[in-house]
Amino acid sequence: MPAAREPEVIRDKAAMRAWSRRRRAEGKTVAVVPTMGYLHDGHLSLISTAAAADNPVAIVVTIYVNPSQFAPSEDLATYPSDFAGDLRKLASTGVVDAVFNPVDLYHRGTRRLAVASGGGAVSCLEEDGDGHETWVRVERLEKGLCGDSRPVFFRGVATIVSKLFNIIEPDVAVFGKKDYQQWRLICRMVRDLDFAIEIIGSEIVREADGLAMSSRNVHLSREEREKALSISRSLVDARTAALKGNTDCTQIKNKIVQTVTETGGEVDYVEIVEQESLAPVEKIDVPVVICVAAWFGKVRLIDNIEIDARS
Amino acid sequence: MPAAREPEVIRDKAAMRAWSRRRRAEGKTVAVVPTMGYLHDGHLSLISTAAAADNPVAIVVTIYVNPSQFAPSEDLATYPSDFAGDLRKLASTGVVDAVFNPVDLYHRGTRRLAVASGGGAVSCLEEDGDGHETWVRVERLEKGLCGDSRPVFFRGVATIVSKLFNIIEPDVAVFGKKDYQQWRLICRMVRDLDFAIEIIGSEIVREADGLAMSSRNVHLSREEREKALSISRSLVDARTAALKGNTDCTQIKNKIVQTVTETGGEVDYVEIVEQESLAPVEKIDVPVVICVAAWFGKVRLIDNIEIDARS
Repeated sequence: MPAAREPEVIRDKAAMRAWSRRRRAEGKTVAVVPTMGYLHDGHLSLISTAAAADNPVAIVVTIYVNPSQFAPSEDLATYPSDFAGDLRKLASTGVVDAVFNPVDLYHRGTRRLAVASGGGAVSCLEEDGDGHETWVRVERLEKGLCGDSRPVFFRGVATIVSKLFNIIEPDVAVFGKKDYQQWRLICRMVRDLDFAIEIIGSEIVREADGLAMSSRNVHLSREEREKALSISRSLVDARTAALKGNTDCTQIKNKIVQTVTETGGEVDYVEIVEQESLAPVEKIDVPVVICVAAWFGKVRLIDNIEIDARS
Repeated sequence: MPAAREPEVIRDKAAMRAWSRRRRAEGKTVAVVPTMGYLHDGHLSLISTAAAADNPVAIVVTIYVNPSQFAPSEDLATYPSDFAGDLRKLASTGVVDAVFNPVDLYHRGTRRLAVASGGGAVSCLEEDGDGHETWVRVERLEKGLCGDSRPVFFRGVATIVSKLFNIIEPDVAVFGKKDYQQWRLICRMVRDLDFAIEIIGSEIVREADGLAMSSRNVHLSREEREKALSISRSLVDARTAALKGNTDCTQIKNKIVQTVTETGGEVDYVEIVEQESLAPVEKIDVPVVICVAAWFGKVRLIDNIEIDARS
């Protein structure tokens, strides 16, 4: 276990970029781990991935709750935060060099939350006048799965990640595969816009009982948390069945929906899609990922499992 | 007049980025001048602006006819080109270090030109499957003026410029104010996405008789070229009138439409807009720009003039 080391806290864009350029000039690889804070072992696993990525590496963790990826109906206001606790956890890793924690990353004009600025999408950040108006869209991968129930989410994610990339100018960025669609979308954006950044997808980290770690888990009651295990359990069962030869996607999806619903969850979607294009498949004969989103009480959880039946 | 100096011709993205990073490591400022080739004195003026921007500076001129900013109905197929001539002109400036002339900058999947990939816009680059799908939109500034008659233009421009910025990683980029809306849109995009790039707007360069220089002028017949002078003449007259106190925009616009139409041009638009927001104004009591687009035969020309009546 490495010794505790306080990361440098940076609030300002220009200071962040200057810090990053100094590390590059010293010959270091700069790795960024974007987060919205309220860190758990899943985040710390992303940091371990970054630390293993290359040497010598300078690691920046960003903590910023991005308003533009939340719809007004979503949980921006109640998204959990604990900056002091986050800093302690980051210090305990002994490998984080800087924390980028800006107050606000958007240029503000006159607000007009009631009106969509384009494409019908309305987020918690819609600016008028000379405010922010530039959006990055990944037009196919932003559709389907979470894109259907969270219409502004991926527009907000692609845009804030572009901004963070331009501010920090990293060589490497680590994203969790728990947000599977997000990870694939960022990979596509980096390819299409020619960012000089290697994207690493880091495996899902689970609690001992199988629940995928998420900052939102804190909002689950003890009872809801118990019920939520039906997601990971049904995903593992589906994978086992698929590897035994049950590759019919309709059957597999129906079973997952049934299991989650019977334990008291409200299914948003269960989809089986090809791993890169995220296109739905009917039969598991290519590398797929089963993606699930479901509500338990007021908490929307997502989880997924990759299956390569050929391996 | 500087001695002729052959710029290095680079076709490959990775080679371009490596070149640029070497210049930065040598302590040079990297300046980029994006063009679609068929260079004229307007382009050479952008290069002079870049050369004056900072010292020591490494200047990259990009020559790439970007398919995604053309609609299928527009003049991609007939856009003029003369790479050998361009190289001679660039060598004669004595200040250009590299020419980035890629064959294709987009990831290609299965083509599907007939179907819009999003937002209803269809360009000469619409990819399906695992092809290019990421677009940068500047949602307010892309509307109005040329955005109305060229619905995919600014989406294509913002996207290709983002790509060029990520490939070349310049410190400075120079754009011509002849493409006024494009220049303002790029400034806004750089601000909103936090590109670490200074954007310089370079003044319009005109022929001796006043015609704004454009690669498309080559397609004008002698007669059309003569008629096209009505644009610049009416703009200068409007500015003179405004500075004398005639600040009513309806009157000014009507006069320009009348002049251009009477000489045989077909007006696409005449607009008087605030210089930064490009919002239409009724009276010239803020810094404005008068923007004109008009057809002469098969050639669509644009021109503009800035007016600050307070100065």
